[in-house]
Amino acid sequence: MVKTIEWAEGRVRILDQCRLPLEITYIECTDYRMVADCIKNMNIRGAPAIGIAAAMGTALGAAELNAKNFDEFMNALQPVFDTLLSTRPTAVNIKWALDRIKNLLNSKRTEPVDALKQLLIDEAINILNEDIEVNKAIGRWGAKLIKDGDRILTHCNAGSLATGGYGTATAPMFIANEEGKKIHVFVDETRPLLQGARLTTWELMQAGIPVTLITDNSAGALMKRGEIDLVIVGTDRTTRNGDVANKIGTYTVAVLCKEHGIPFYVAAPLSSIDFSLPSGDMIPIEERAPEEVTIVFGGCRIAPEGVGVRNMAFDVTPAKYVTAIITEKGVFRPEDIKNLMEETPDLDAIRL
Amino acid sequence: MVKTIEWAEGRVRILDQCRLPLEITYIECTDYRMVADCIKNMNIRGAPAIGIAAAMGTALGAAELNAKNFDEFMNALQPVFDTLLSTRPTAVNIKWALDRIKNLLNSKRTEPVDALKQLLIDEAINILNEDIEVNKAIGRWGAKLIKDGDRILTHCNAGSLATGGYGTATAPMFIANEEGKKIHVFVDETRPLLQGARLTTWELMQAGIPVTLITDNSAGALMKRGEIDLVIVGTDRTTRNGDVANKIGTYTVAVLCKEHGIPFYVAAPLSSIDFSLPSGDMIPIEERAPEEVTIVFGGCRIAPEGVGVRNMAFDVTPAKYVTAIITEKGVFRPEDIKNLMEETPDLDAIRL
Repeated sequence: MVKTIEWAEGRVRILDQCRLPLEITYIECTDYRMVADCIKNMNIRGAPAIGIAAAMGTALGAAELNAKNFDEFMNALQPVFDTLLSTRPTAVNIKWALDRIKNLLNSKRTEPVDALKQLLIDEAINILNEDIEVNKAIGRWGAKLIKDGDRILTHCNAGSLATGGYGTATAPMFIANEEGKKIHVFVDETRPLLQGARLTTWELMQAGIPVTLITDNSAGALMKRGEIDLVIVGTDRTTRNGDVANKIGTYTVAVLCKEHGIPFYVAAPLSSIDFSLPSGDMIPIEERAPEEVTIVFGGCRIAPEGVGVRNMAFDVTPAKYVTAIITEKGVFRPEDIKNLMEETPDLDAIRL
Repeated sequence: MVKTIEWAEGRVRILDQCRLPLEITYIECTDYRMVADCIKNMNIRGAPAIGIAAAMGTALGAAELNAKNFDEFMNALQPVFDTLLSTRPTAVNIKWALDRIKNLLNSKRTEPVDALKQLLIDEAINILNEDIEVNKAIGRWGAKLIKDGDRILTHCNAGSLATGGYGTATAPMFIANEEGKKIHVFVDETRPLLQGARLTTWELMQAGIPVTLITDNSAGALMKRGEIDLVIVGTDRTTRNGDVANKIGTYTVAVLCKEHGIPFYVAAPLSSIDFSLPSGDMIPIEERAPEEVTIVFGGCRIAPEGVGVRNMAFDVTPAKYVTAIITEKGVFRPEDIKNLMEETPDLDAIRL
């Protein structure tokens, strides 16, 4: 399995997902601004992966700082935090990673600056490694929801490329496949940036899982014909009431699931749950450049010059459409997610 | 307004819609097989337009026949009918046009063969001109459903390019615009062949109507935000119970309309209503080549080589999702469409 991102001796090595699957190339970031650009331009994307990238970007930014003490160090780091946090507004994982780093630093204020710099490198690598373990746990819980013979639909890419490895929405598929269940995955191509067509199909084919690519327009017709048994998607930010922000088009898939009585599952590591927000209405929705719609991957123009375009990158699926949320701690009803905020939640009482 | 198709002194001149909007080029068909290829390859597309093309193709096929009498003429024409009818299975308009031609010929069995050949040319031109009048009537009826300030969503292209002129779904927009109503049209790009992005935006921009292109994934989110007031689409075949076959993705739009309480209108000339079929389950759904999905307009590959693809060109929207059907005879509830079969239906009793 190719590595999405890694710390490589003072550089951050990022697989360039804008070129996949036609070319496998890497971007060697020697500066936190390069990491920020990779996040903004979506060379790396996916909520968990950009959280990891932000942590590694911070370590890179810290390495080049001159600071004599903790306070100077934190002041000098502020522009690094600000730059990374401003790259993409919808996913909460960047904020989650930076908050974790700040808390760690604040607990080590008496350490010398060089030790703090090393601490940031170690913590970024921890975040990457923990993410992979979290995804495997999501996979084990989620695989229980998959029966032999199931036909699963997914939207966008919440695969290993969107994470440290293993993926969120794909983890249950990988585990079910490893368990010997015969599954078939239908992949929405996911316009405009075609992460489904380019990335998810590629990952599943590499794992030997049977895959059928469809246009986003086809999901409804397949459901009506009874050819989809369940849906699993990822999330960029889930609020404490169980509302789910994810790639544009996810909401439509959820409405279609309701209409056809098909389970709609969201794979959400705790790092993607924003317990500070009471509802999805408060999630900022990123709007991106019109050219993402009018000029398709590879450079093909598909619409008249000068046409007006609305390019919302995400939408919000209200909790009422969500059958269950698959986390590393278990599978929960969306309305029970808020309990995971507690210090020691009674997980057995609320697990499905 | 550019002409979609015309009879040009023994040739059929077809605007090549596979190149629009980047190039305006014409294909000069000198043979009925060329017309059939244009229909199959979608150089010309849209239910009414391919009905017209089939009529002109028949006239072209007849011109080259050697036959001494009516029976020989009809026998020799059979392969022409068969070739044209086999091009595309879902839209009913080809069958409608060929049935009309056969009925006309059968009523003129005593005419000399040369007169029959001229009759076919005249009838093909009649079908084209009548189609434009039908569309204008659809526009007048449909414009009554549009209020000043309305934001209308459409899917695919049921514009002048899909017809002899004026369009079906677009006709009410053109008339409302001419009446001075301020409207805004959101256009689904309509994967895989992008008729919305390429054709509908282009037509509306030429008419000076404000237009916003969106990915098919965005319609649900816009509806949830309250930014769509009504939907108008065309149809390739509507059955007598009011079920509507149209471009893949139409069913999803209809489900979204139901969920959000938004009117879902279908513009359907009588030539697209198949009174012989009791329900949409019986409409053959064309499946097209995988490359339409994996290689986007302009030649850009967007998915791994060898990926499995399902490319259904159409879907069926059950009558229960259809608010009303706009025909040249008036606007009707889908369940009342069957009354239009009658010799002299009491239209005032069932018009909305």
